[in-house]
Amino acid sequence: MAIIEGRNPIIEALKNDREIDKIMISNSSKEGSIKKIIAMAKEKGIAIQNVDKKKLDEISESHSHQGVIAQVSDYKYFELDEILEIVKNKGEDAFFIILDEITDPHNLGSIIRTADAVGAHAVIIPKRRSVNITPVVAKASAGAVEYVPVCKVTNIVNTIKRLKEEGLWIAAADMDGDVFYEKDLKGPLALVIGSEGFGISRLVKKNCDFVVKMPMIGNVTSLNASVASGILLYEIFKQRQN
Amino acid sequence: MAIIEGRNPIIEALKNDREIDKIMISNSSKEGSIKKIIAMAKEKGIAIQNVDKKKLDEISESHSHQGVIAQVSDYKYFELDEILEIVKNKGEDAFFIILDEITDPHNLGSIIRTADAVGAHAVIIPKRRSVNITPVVAKASAGAVEYVPVCKVTNIVNTIKRLKEEGLWIAAADMDGDVFYEKDLKGPLALVIGSEGFGISRLVKKNCDFVVKMPMIGNVTSLNASVASGILLYEIFKQRQN
Repeated sequence: MAIIEGRNPIIEALKNDREIDKIMISNSSKEGSIKKIIAMAKEKGIAIQNVDKKKLDEISESHSHQGVIAQVSDYKYFELDEILEIVKNKGEDAFFIILDEITDPHNLGSIIRTADAVGAHAVIIPKRRSVNITPVVAKASAGAVEYVPVCKVTNIVNTIKRLKEEGLWIAAADMDGDVFYEKDLKGPLALVIGSEGFGISRLVKKNCDFVVKMPMIGNVTSLNASVASGILLYEIFKQRQN
Repeated sequence: MAIIEGRNPIIEALKNDREIDKIMISNSSKEGSIKKIIAMAKEKGIAIQNVDKKKLDEISESHSHQGVIAQVSDYKYFELDEILEIVKNKGEDAFFIILDEITDPHNLGSIIRTADAVGAHAVIIPKRRSVNITPVVAKASAGAVEYVPVCKVTNIVNTIKRLKEEGLWIAAADMDGDVFYEKDLKGPLALVIGSEGFGISRLVKKNCDFVVKMPMIGNVTSLNASVASGILLYEIFKQRQN
């Protein structure tokens, strides 16, 4: 059993017909968007339970539930074949993001949020040494986890090899390589982002087709992982639009 | 009295000759970058105090001090005249970021980090309803607060008027307006970013010269404030480089 916390994530889950067992609402918060949640839940026949704010505080993992928590079935990760199938059915060039061991839930949520904005087809994470889809991730994604398929794979290198067979180009984001906005990023593409502390692992990088870098003219030597992802994703988006 | 927490922020403060009263180091962490901090502090004649990890836990505001906390004089905000003077002395087109009531310290820190990377001259925040430079902000900035001047102003609208007199163009980031990568963003410019929850206030927006938007083709209707800032800052950087 999993939970979704906060008003916008729950509204997105309701809009997207996510299977919800019940919605717990704090007795003290009944105004504004809570009313909207109650109305949507009633329309869908989802049980609403009035509870003490204290109870929500106990259940909450994000510690910012905004007076409402939904109990849902566990997040259902997608298989690699499924996301490849989605792309084929859409008749579009694949646009995936591979996260090589991102551990901060705010970063993962924020990347999924940007992935939704630019129309990326899926976010791929490894089974080990990565944060999972938790309530904090869902909240940081502003509900986008309900729309962007997240695929969990056993081995990133094998996944990259498979995606190459399917015709994708694999771009690694790192400190060396070509300036990102001077590189052709059109066509079927997977962008690989490394972990917050250690960047992309050697073996993963070795299997990428090319490396793009963000030029930096100040004193810091790296950017926040979700910021770097956002900048690269929008460059890919721009090139795909043209 | 203020503190700086964590290894990289303290190394950056040492490099940048920030006035440090003393550095407290946990007895249990003496390897790697801690050695570097000790060597740098000794060279500069800064007192080092060995303390229990518990003591650092008590003092810590970021809860990720990594075994080291520096006591420093309070963050010294810059005046508007000072940052204008810095730009004049550099002989460059001004490049400022105005944050209209950003309240999340991770967002502020992350924006200052990107501002450093793209060579922006200053970040301007309002005195009221904004997060200040706290240890959490310094940590999220990866030490960039030591390099990017942060200017605190009483009134954003008056500041915008003053900057216009100084020849800057004022660009607001919002949901309407021109697509950011189709807009000419060269020349002396200040980019205005709104608050996480409410965007740019009406009066501030009215005083901007133009509005740039990020196109979004998914389901979410906004991006994380630090991600949106990063994308726009890199577009400005790119145009200034050309």
